[in-house]
Amino acid sequence: MANQDDNLLKKIVAHAKEYGFVFPSSEIYDGLGAAYDYGQNGVELKNNIKNYWWKAMVQMNENIVGIDAAIFMHPTTWKASGHVDAFNDPLIDNKDSKKRYRADVLIEEHIAKIEAKIDKEVDKAAKRFGDKFDKAQFVATNERVLRYTEQIEMINGKMKAAIESGNLNQLKTLIEELEIADPVSGSKNWTDVRQFNLMFSTELGSLAEGANKIYLRPETAQGIFVNFLNVQKTGRMKLPFGIAQIGKAFRNEIIARQFIFRMREFEQMEMQFFVKPGEEMKWYEHWKAQRIKWHKILGLGEENYRFHDHLNLAHYANAACDIEFNFPMGFKELEGIHSRTDFDLKAHEEYSGKKIQFFDHQENRSYIPYVIETSIGLDRMFLAILAIAYTEETLEDGSERTVLKIPAALAPCKLAVLPLLQRDNLPEKGREIMDMLKYDFQCQYDEKDTIGKRYRRHDAIGTPYCVTVDHQTLEDNTVTLRDRDSAQQERIHINELKNKIEELVSLTGLLKKIQ
Amino acid sequence: MANQDDNLLKKIVAHAKEYGFVFPSSEIYDGLGAAYDYGQNGVELKNNIKNYWWKAMVQMNENIVGIDAAIFMHPTTWKASGHVDAFNDPLIDNKDSKKRYRADVLIEEHIAKIEAKIDKEVDKAAKRFGDKFDKAQFVATNERVLRYTEQIEMINGKMKAAIESGNLNQLKTLIEELEIADPVSGSKNWTDVRQFNLMFSTELGSLAEGANKIYLRPETAQGIFVNFLNVQKTGRMKLPFGIAQIGKAFRNEIIARQFIFRMREFEQMEMQFFVKPGEEMKWYEHWKAQRIKWHKILGLGEENYRFHDHLNLAHYANAACDIEFNFPMGFKELEGIHSRTDFDLKAHEEYSGKKIQFFDHQENRSYIPYVIETSIGLDRMFLAILAIAYTEETLEDGSERTVLKIPAALAPCKLAVLPLLQRDNLPEKGREIMDMLKYDFQCQYDEKDTIGKRYRRHDAIGTPYCVTVDHQTLEDNTVTLRDRDSAQQERIHINELKNKIEELVSLTGLLKKIQ
Repeated sequence: MANQDDNLLKKIVAHAKEYGFVFPSSEIYDGLGAAYDYGQNGVELKNNIKNYWWKAMVQMNENIVGIDAAIFMHPTTWKASGHVDAFNDPLIDNKDSKKRYRADVLIEEHIAKIEAKIDKEVDKAAKRFGDKFDKAQFVATNERVLRYTEQIEMINGKMKAAIESGNLNQLKTLIEELEIADPVSGSKNWTDVRQFNLMFSTELGSLAEGANKIYLRPETAQGIFVNFLNVQKTGRMKLPFGIAQIGKAFRNEIIARQFIFRMREFEQMEMQFFVKPGEEMKWYEHWKAQRIKWHKILGLGEENYRFHDHLNLAHYANAACDIEFNFPMGFKELEGIHSRTDFDLKAHEEYSGKKIQFFDHQENRSYIPYVIETSIGLDRMFLAILAIAYTEETLEDGSERTVLKIPAALAPCKLAVLPLLQRDNLPEKGREIMDMLKYDFQCQYDEKDTIGKRYRRHDAIGTPYCVTVDHQTLEDNTVTLRDRDSAQQERIHINELKNKIEELVSLTGLLKKIQ
Repeated sequence: MANQDDNLLKKIVAHAKEYGFVFPSSEIYDGLGAAYDYGQNGVELKNNIKNYWWKAMVQMNENIVGIDAAIFMHPTTWKASGHVDAFNDPLIDNKDSKKRYRADVLIEEHIAKIEAKIDKEVDKAAKRFGDKFDKAQFVATNERVLRYTEQIEMINGKMKAAIESGNLNQLKTLIEELEIADPVSGSKNWTDVRQFNLMFSTELGSLAEGANKIYLRPETAQGIFVNFLNVQKTGRMKLPFGIAQIGKAFRNEIIARQFIFRMREFEQMEMQFFVKPGEEMKWYEHWKAQRIKWHKILGLGEENYRFHDHLNLAHYANAACDIEFNFPMGFKELEGIHSRTDFDLKAHEEYSGKKIQFFDHQENRSYIPYVIETSIGLDRMFLAILAIAYTEETLEDGSERTVLKIPAALAPCKLAVLPLLQRDNLPEKGREIMDMLKYDFQCQYDEKDTIGKRYRRHDAIGTPYCVTVDHQTLEDNTVTLRDRDSAQQERIHINELKNKIEELVSLTGLLKKIQ
């Protein structure tokens, strides 16, 4: 199973490159670790996802407005937010190999090895017992498995305690206890564990005018918080109201991996919803419901989403959960929904010495609002869509194809106009149709190769509809409209095309379902 | 005149803040030099500009596709592009005040002082001669003015020679010759001139895994060049074809100023058009014509644009010009159009050791394409629009207003729905209209304050149309539609609203004019 999904991820990476969705960054220079470039089809899919999110948030909600804050922010911002002091990874070096690792990841990999042992026992037993095998019962009773499970729980408990208390020595002790060796050299000769801040820093200005060490923002949220008063006042906003933002963030991850799932440069779509203190749990539930709806109406399969409640809350939160998605690597965080209390605004009050409060006319008093945050990784959303959309199948006529079943409203190209032949005035007729539709839709015109090859090409980039212009078109102004997923065709009059396509591919249909 | 325009810029900055277009970045921490945040109306205007550019480039041209490359690129990219070695400002320190300046800017400020003297002579003479004053003749004959003009030419000539030859000592000599003093301390005690690289650098990864010094990209163009082959091959592109990109770039300007005109973090909209060598001048002219058309059909006034041909070409160009716009600070670069030859692709071939060529099937040979670049500053475009849109005027009824006459298709809010009163079912009817239109347009609903105040508010953010719901609406389903610029109203049936507004505010009208 794990192996199969690993293959899926590999296939997606290859397909994404071959069809202009995602290229390794600076590939001609043999790439840059954990950075990717979006190609000609990727950028359109990405923009369509942004558009779907932005419209659902800002255009559909009278009490949500957007902003676009700079990546560069005053460095005190990150002192107030806690990132300067606490946004760290625990790193450990092997003295012999000189390699550096994340201490927690070394331990997690050790746990994964024990989990693999459990899987092996299960597989062995499954073979032995055949149809009669009851996995749940076996795992709950087999002595060896029980011992492994106990070990895992012990390790997890110790690791969590060490991280939460910030006692890095305990992590080193645990690594030594478990006799974890450097995967490269096999050496167990470790340094102490040290904290490594994940923010990228740079110098603003030149030395003499007082150069400042500044950071690339590690999250977009703070750009919203520092602008809270500006937006509230100039936009005459009343509680509850939200501020939405799409933008890049940067984290110097030691181990960035799994394609675009964890990158050092990534894009977030965040909305901070400001509410009256005491009402936050109501709005937390509201936004949980709204966000899962936004995902599910895309039709990627309801079974691919699940909520994961945080049991150990971050220092700023009084409730938090993830929307996890069934990625090729398993269920992983796609979006976070957090009740952040008044932590951020309060901290910015303290550090800036400025009052950051909302004046409640009904209650005739000022207070710091509470905040519900919804935060989704744009690149993860992109990967989620590719992962489900990627399909290898055999059509009714026996031909095989790789098709990206991307939700029509998000597809990079909505419509391909294909003259059957490169003669008999069919290309001219095709261009006429292009000129009619290109203002309203992302269209492509393609006359090269056989019609079958062209269908395969558009299947591979996820074009939901193909219009084929044939000899009958010249007679009665009808074309065939081919549906990507069913590969079925229907004949339709040219004059009906615009409305028909509009209905099939516009975001409006999705947006109406969220309301 | 200069003073008036200075006032205009100040008014625009104040208006942009008061109405949620542009806030100083991290304002609660007293701002961060030369960074700005776009507020709730600014982000919409910015997105609409992006959309206009992207659709005009990518959606309207079958042979132009987009990409979205990462900000982080392999550091060799900037070696190949020449930025590591030559993207410098000449800096000089005053030994007494310890202040640092751009040497060329000190000299330019000295020139500005001489220019001010000329202006003073002109003003004096104008007063003396009254109606009979012929400025051109005066400037061409007055001895004192001629002496000043000569001085300016001499200084400009020396400065240019120093910069072009890279001989920084000559700049220092010139500063000493002109007896330029530190504007702060008055001291003439200067250090040598040194080069200061404008790229921001940061460290990728942690030390032990081999940390890399990388740069924040100072331009988006290189993201296109390094992806040339990926896009050309996976998109099956044939020459001539273009790759378009919108994204952030970063330059550590010593003197960043004039609001959002020159920022350290800014956004570019660039398109690199790859052509067969020898055809570049034809395409250079083509893109000059196309780009000026794109600007002019916005209706900001044709007299506000001019071409400025580069007489001194950059090392990579064989032809180049700017589209200059009449900003409040005078005519300045808004967009650049450059014939970059094969400089960039050739350099990347050399540094990567990989062949970056196009195989021409007709000629049966491979070659490195030539490139025409169109590069526009998104933030400058934003400022250009605000500058022309900002209008203080007295209406026919004698009332005064500040109105932003933003081109309707780019306005942050397209339509305000305003019930005349907060009773008699007018709000309900208003919401009904909102529900009808909100999927297609950026709409706002507003029922607070008198209708006059609400018109003023929407004038101030540039909303091109206001729909007012009154008692007659309840009887015959008609509303008044108010035009922002004329302040005239017409009565229109609700059922006609959507088509009417679509016609008035959609991008399609503009896009059709470019074709």
